[in-house]
Amino acid sequence: MENIFTDEYFMKKALIEAEIAFEKGEIPVGAVIVIDNKVIARSHNLTELLHDVTAHAEMQAITSAANYLGGKYLKDCTLYVTLEPCQMCAGALYWSQISKIVFGASDENRGFLKMGTQLHPKTKVVSGVLEKECAILMKAFFRTKR
Amino acid sequence: MENIFTDEYFMKKALIEAEIAFEKGEIPVGAVIVIDNKVIARSHNLTELLHDVTAHAEMQAITSAANYLGGKYLKDCTLYVTLEPCQMCAGALYWSQISKIVFGASDENRGFLKMGTQLHPKTKVVSGVLEKECAILMKAFFRTKR
Repeated sequence: MENIFTDEYFMKKALIEAEIAFEKGEIPVGAVIVIDNKVIARSHNLTELLHDVTAHAEMQAITSAANYLGGKYLKDCTLYVTLEPCQMCAGALYWSQISKIVFGASDENRGFLKMGTQLHPKTKVVSGVLEKECAILMKAFFRTKR
Repeated sequence: MENIFTDEYFMKKALIEAEIAFEKGEIPVGAVIVIDNKVIARSHNLTELLHDVTAHAEMQAITSAANYLGGKYLKDCTLYVTLEPCQMCAGALYWSQISKIVFGASDENRGFLKMGTQLHPKTKVVSGVLEKECAILMKAFFRTKR
């Protein structure tokens, strides 16, 4: 039987969250956290609505997943996020010791790779999953802001 | 008339928060955010109690201050924190565009200076305020954990 639980499969769930953010007038970034092929957290950027710079999709997902698991470490979990995490989110992921991070579009200006933020040595990173779809949503959003 | 509102004055308030964290069995870090010599947010580390790596004192203080101000930018605000911020907290402070960060003890291993986390260009940093008092609390805490 074919495995339907691919990185693309879960990134589509993150994209749905990003679309909800877009509809709310937020920078369209969405995230889900998965353990054993089960989504245990889903979230989207809410910085404008909450007037809170810490309300990035990833931060909410980390809190939510830890809540679900009853512990602060996200070992054996994978984060799917439509945009490359920033310094803050990568810093939170560092503390969480998450197993894997999968992101869609790159953030050449403020992404953690460019900024040199350190992840936990056990964390694997996969980039560019549904990159085009993730990037299109961002571009469409910033076009509405011009 | 003498100005009582020195950096030491507000760091003492942050230290009181750190002591509350200590009493709760949390790594003893406390923070306050001040605008116009008025404390608008006070918080202490709650990562163990909340099972949440994002519950650092600074993160809670940022959310709380933004809530008070009704906007996500912390311009004209100063954060006083007993320990040098980590990557995550410095990353959040970057987004907040906070005017000034004052910290007590340095974190040689996981502090943002060592990690190279970028702050907003408008943010000033003062270090070593009540450093000894802040560091003693940390050392006392880790002694109880051995």
